[in-house]
Amino acid sequence: MLRRQLFNKVSARTMITSHCVMIKEHGQPKDVLFTHEYEIDDDNLKEDSVLVKTLSSPINPSDINQIEGVYPSQPPKTQDLGTSFPTFVCGNEGLFEVVKVGSGVKDFQAGDWAVPLRVNMGTWRTYGEFSKEKLFKIPNPQQSKDQGKPPLNVVQASTLLVNPLSAYLMLNNFMKLEKNDWFIQNGGNSAVGKYATQIGKIMGVNSISVIRDRPNIDEVKQDLKGLGATQVITEEENNDREYSKQVKNWIKESGGNLKLGLNCVGGKSSTGVARKLQNDGLMLTYGGMSFQPVILPTSIHLFKNITSAGFWSTTIVEKDPSIKKKVLDQLVNWYQSGELKEAPAKENLFEAGDLCDMYKQGIIDAKSGKQLVTFK
Amino acid sequence: MLRRQLFNKVSARTMITSHCVMIKEHGQPKDVLFTHEYEIDDDNLKEDSVLVKTLSSPINPSDINQIEGVYPSQPPKTQDLGTSFPTFVCGNEGLFEVVKVGSGVKDFQAGDWAVPLRVNMGTWRTYGEFSKEKLFKIPNPQQSKDQGKPPLNVVQASTLLVNPLSAYLMLNNFMKLEKNDWFIQNGGNSAVGKYATQIGKIMGVNSISVIRDRPNIDEVKQDLKGLGATQVITEEENNDREYSKQVKNWIKESGGNLKLGLNCVGGKSSTGVARKLQNDGLMLTYGGMSFQPVILPTSIHLFKNITSAGFWSTTIVEKDPSIKKKVLDQLVNWYQSGELKEAPAKENLFEAGDLCDMYKQGIIDAKSGKQLVTFK
Repeated sequence: MLRRQLFNKVSARTMITSHCVMIKEHGQPKDVLFTHEYEIDDDNLKEDSVLVKTLSSPINPSDINQIEGVYPSQPPKTQDLGTSFPTFVCGNEGLFEVVKVGSGVKDFQAGDWAVPLRVNMGTWRTYGEFSKEKLFKIPNPQQSKDQGKPPLNVVQASTLLVNPLSAYLMLNNFMKLEKNDWFIQNGGNSAVGKYATQIGKIMGVNSISVIRDRPNIDEVKQDLKGLGATQVITEEENNDREYSKQVKNWIKESGGNLKLGLNCVGGKSSTGVARKLQNDGLMLTYGGMSFQPVILPTSIHLFKNITSAGFWSTTIVEKDPSIKKKVLDQLVNWYQSGELKEAPAKENLFEAGDLCDMYKQGIIDAKSGKQLVTFK
Repeated sequence: MLRRQLFNKVSARTMITSHCVMIKEHGQPKDVLFTHEYEIDDDNLKEDSVLVKTLSSPINPSDINQIEGVYPSQPPKTQDLGTSFPTFVCGNEGLFEVVKVGSGVKDFQAGDWAVPLRVNMGTWRTYGEFSKEKLFKIPNPQQSKDQGKPPLNVVQASTLLVNPLSAYLMLNNFMKLEKNDWFIQNGGNSAVGKYATQIGKIMGVNSISVIRDRPNIDEVKQDLKGLGATQVITEEENNDREYSKQVKNWIKESGGNLKLGLNCVGGKSSTGVARKLQNDGLMLTYGGMSFQPVILPTSIHLFKNITSAGFWSTTIVEKDPSIKKKVLDQLVNWYQSGELKEAPAKENLFEAGDLCDMYKQGIIDAKSGKQLVTFK
């Protein structure tokens, strides 16, 4: 920082000020989030750096767990942004617009859209300077138009990295699903559930979505079928051994096989999902909304050769970021072709004030649906 | 049968009479087992047939489950042995001595020892005629002596197919265990557990055996350590999150990794086993003695990438009997070299009377340990 401070004094020129939301210690977001301002010298970017402005930064459950300290992937705490103590910038998902690039950067130019290619980059900030290797370019609205394709909107572009990426990877990286094959998922009305339904449909794969019973169940069933769900059943039906015969009939009539289960609930819901899989089936667990463990009858392990495994996109994409690039390209294509619809998210525009208050409020509102903090 | 009956009448020669234990309908063994006698025309064996005399036929839990109708692998019911209704001969494990062979059989001769190569062959009988393809030759005592090696005893030779085969396959066919790596198993004092401990030791692999607390716990721990167990812990210790630190220390000091868990108990015991595995570990479930399902915390699926799978030797060896041949050869070698000790089993010699009474009594006595019905 010393060099920069000296430079400032001498030139008296204006630097770019970034507001970022950080934590010093883990805890409840309302207690530990704070805003830090730091300056980026845009005339002296590193050779391979890209200076970006944030357009949208979502709040995901994993971001909150990271702040609380109950998430195993954690950014390293540093003093690189001029704090007097080690800290990190929160947020993992987002959409950036390129402002300026370092002298060695050829693949990005001002106005391009980009998304983080790695986790723990800290997206809850107004501006950031990142190595070009850590960014993935996606078409901005003008570039889409130039290709004769509909542009991605900000919600689509800023929410590629968590839910649709997970849905894609779970359906494509484990079991070979042929046309007419089936998967079954609980949490069918969740964001991941809706993306999995749609991606399954695009792939020609049938799906059974398990959802909780609710007053407007018929409406929700219709919505999910509209997205492409082949069947939608309730948790009560999922837990009913008799109802399994109905499920078996659907599958038999289709000529396909029920090979894959996606579980984000746990407890007896996971048992119901696993029981319905055919021999040699796989259940992937990517969440535990019921706070109950995965429960698997011994007999389906032994005699049906059902395997239960975990899915965590972080492990997969951090091991091999090229997988992430491939999936992001596919998702962008599906959005441009209109085959994929985004899950709903609320845009909260930051105009002035203390940036961390936007995220604190967003975390409260996250109970009613995905929240984005957006910037002009 | 007609041809044979005619032949009998004409020649009046003596055929070999086999006593076999059968069921007509599933149910409790004491109610449904019966003895059937049939004759084998040893002068007219099929070209590829081997006529064998049973030396020993164990009673395994899976045999009992097969009789009760709660086991998914079932022999086809036929009238091939002259019953007036479809039925099958019980029993899957055993040791045979070859009596005579068909004209096309070169690999077997009278006096050879053989074991069933397939399941559902019906070993609870005094004599049988089997296709040569379904039998696997092992050295009889004289042949071992001729090789300068100690002979296998009847218990060793007649109990190769279930427990030691399972232990071998679980340790060798799933995870690559390097020297100094570890596995952890509950049911450490079971027959499979004891074979796994010994085979692990031969492979240079460390083991943790979880056993139930009992009055003579120190004695049992010493016995298991004598067989090669690196550590023996109680179920209480297995369930204690604090105790896990001790386990981690053992592993750290060894320089190896705890990659594999073997679970035959289920419930919280399976949770304790799975929790101790290192990242990317695998738990194989081969039984559920507690009658509780396998219970897996969501977090170890997600963040430690622990996989839970089933193990059923039937699927593996029926798909590819060559695997069974390879493992049987290895087990025979280890018995001959004295590296492997058999788990205890009680020999019940059949001399006269109704054969099915031997098995009915053996099933009652099975609660106190493995029972074999043996023949002179």
